[in-house]
Amino acid sequence: MTRDTAGRIGEVRENTIATPPDDRSGPHDGPEAAVILNGTKASVDPELRSAIDTLPSQMRRVARYHFGWENPDGTPATGGAGKAIRPALVLTAAESLGGRGARADAVRAAAAVELVHNFTLLHDDVMDRDATRRHRPTAWTVFGDPDAILAGDALQALAMQLLAQDPHPAAPRAAARLAACVVELCEGQHADTAMEDRAPDEVSLDEVFTMAQAKTGALIGCACAVGALYAGAADEDVEALDAFGRAAGLAFQLIDDVIGIWGDPGRTGKPAGADLAARKKSLPVVAALTSGGPEAAELAALYGEPYDQRDLERTVLAIERAGGRDWAQAQAADRMARAMDELARAIPDPEAAGGLLSLAEFVTRRSS
Amino acid sequence: MTRDTAGRIGEVRENTIATPPDDRSGPHDGPEAAVILNGTKASVDPELRSAIDTLPSQMRRVARYHFGWENPDGTPATGGAGKAIRPALVLTAAESLGGRGARADAVRAAAAVELVHNFTLLHDDVMDRDATRRHRPTAWTVFGDPDAILAGDALQALAMQLLAQDPHPAAPRAAARLAACVVELCEGQHADTAMEDRAPDEVSLDEVFTMAQAKTGALIGCACAVGALYAGAADEDVEALDAFGRAAGLAFQLIDDVIGIWGDPGRTGKPAGADLAARKKSLPVVAALTSGGPEAAELAALYGEPYDQRDLERTVLAIERAGGRDWAQAQAADRMARAMDELARAIPDPEAAGGLLSLAEFVTRRSS
Repeated sequence: MTRDTAGRIGEVRENTIATPPDDRSGPHDGPEAAVILNGTKASVDPELRSAIDTLPSQMRRVARYHFGWENPDGTPATGGAGKAIRPALVLTAAESLGGRGARADAVRAAAAVELVHNFTLLHDDVMDRDATRRHRPTAWTVFGDPDAILAGDALQALAMQLLAQDPHPAAPRAAARLAACVVELCEGQHADTAMEDRAPDEVSLDEVFTMAQAKTGALIGCACAVGALYAGAADEDVEALDAFGRAAGLAFQLIDDVIGIWGDPGRTGKPAGADLAARKKSLPVVAALTSGGPEAAELAALYGEPYDQRDLERTVLAIERAGGRDWAQAQAADRMARAMDELARAIPDPEAAGGLLSLAEFVTRRSS
Repeated sequence: MTRDTAGRIGEVRENTIATPPDDRSGPHDGPEAAVILNGTKASVDPELRSAIDTLPSQMRRVARYHFGWENPDGTPATGGAGKAIRPALVLTAAESLGGRGARADAVRAAAAVELVHNFTLLHDDVMDRDATRRHRPTAWTVFGDPDAILAGDALQALAMQLLAQDPHPAAPRAAARLAACVVELCEGQHADTAMEDRAPDEVSLDEVFTMAQAKTGALIGCACAVGALYAGAADEDVEALDAFGRAAGLAFQLIDDVIGIWGDPGRTGKPAGADLAARKKSLPVVAALTSGGPEAAELAALYGEPYDQRDLERTVLAIERAGGRDWAQAQAADRMARAMDELARAIPDPEAAGGLLSLAEFVTRRSS
């Protein structure tokens, strides 16, 4: 599906992260990610819906719209729901370390993690003035900033309420971990928005990695760690799963940044060049900016000016020629290798680890 | 200090709520509210500061500014801190029902309640575009909307983290209650902002009461209930203390609305007429609008137009002549009587109830 004209904004190629084919079949293979994600939705959606049903009228309305369950007028909608990657990580981590019982115990916590993720999406869209999410107008464009902010606040509270009411002995530790993660997400989003106001040559790659770690890695790590807590895992295994999730999360962010530049708007649900128009200092962009060649200088000049639609193709090409795309894909592969190491530390049995492996590969190989 | 020219915007008179003088001395008397509030700050401030010290750099900076501890450049500031009424209610409720030990146990929960209160202030100021709070520029005017929103998010998370890490057996129930309260606060703030966009004759007094109950009564009730939980109180006493706080909170809101119109800007820290300029459908305003006389019609006509500074005096006078001020003060007295009934139900011993009584009287008699 990649467009055939060289240099055009094409779609991210599938399998860009080199996993040798022989590693992708045979006894090490876990269940397919799609099966896990569907199973997660079947388990977590009822919990999520009944939690959201407890919200008072306007908060419920905005939340149901945001989750893709309703149109703005309250009529049922289909599509537009998220992929449920984070709750899938909670349930799969719990099952990998504690079996079916742990998976069942962790459903409420998985819903809490998904609520936190969606609270941050609601708020980030307000701050970033993003008008489209999951192929639909964002909540603030439909309900206004105040209601989008308030619905986000309410979803955070709902997440914590679910955990506070969960009698499982792991619930308080999961709640403390999730709350600490929210704080990290906030600092990550601050760093992201603050970077947009800075000149292209003022941002280092280290800073962008730190930001991405906080903004994306933290919650994916937390999801895995929460699953481990519900399995009653030892502290070092909880931390290893957190590290696994953080590394996979960073790989995911790298690929997400690549998609933000080279992805097909028809599949990403975001307009082409949105990240570049917002002058986002994403990982491939900063890698390109700091690469030192003539394309880096050209990109810096382009990025130093306000966005002009006519410069989009040139900007994309400069990032690519400066090596931003290749670098991001190699980095993503590197982070995935680290993630595998951490996973093997917590779950040495490849069969037990198969589900988490499938999910990690899914998120770093997705094309939308 | 009331200005002597009739009709001018004067200061709210002290003792506007008629408490017979003989009820205000003798054995029923609790400790002075000022003593309780100072004692609360001495207990809760260290907990609050050490919690905020755990925040990452920008979140910490915004939080410290908001709490009045620092200037925007990070140098120490004095003044601008809140009155600590909500944490005082937590500690006093705990002590009234469970003695000194319960009070000491509840310090972390009191800090959590204060964090939640301040998270809502940060977000409300963004939504309401309020530029001044506690005599200082609001956080969003100093750090921008994104950081004010994110710092609010982080304070909510920090509150829940404190409770999740609290080993006290009451902590999970307190956390669930506080989270449910946040959801109610969000719906209340939604109702408040949504009302501003509606025509003056479209808002009923019932709606405004429901909004005030959610926006103000809920957290004051929750503070009292959380204190009762830490004292190990019976369920019906927890609920009675919640009802006490809600009724006192509504009295507080009525007086706060009166202060918003007739208070001295030098003491309130807000510009004169700010609530009227924003066309706030506050309780005295809606009472005046729905009173039916010629002043109600005049007020409706004034409120139907965009704010004009030159009409401020006429607007204030119309509300007063339509009975909005007297009505609000009588209503506040009525709510306080209900609050006393609920308090006596949970804590029949007037001496034990003295602290909560002092606080309730303090908030409904304050002049700024």
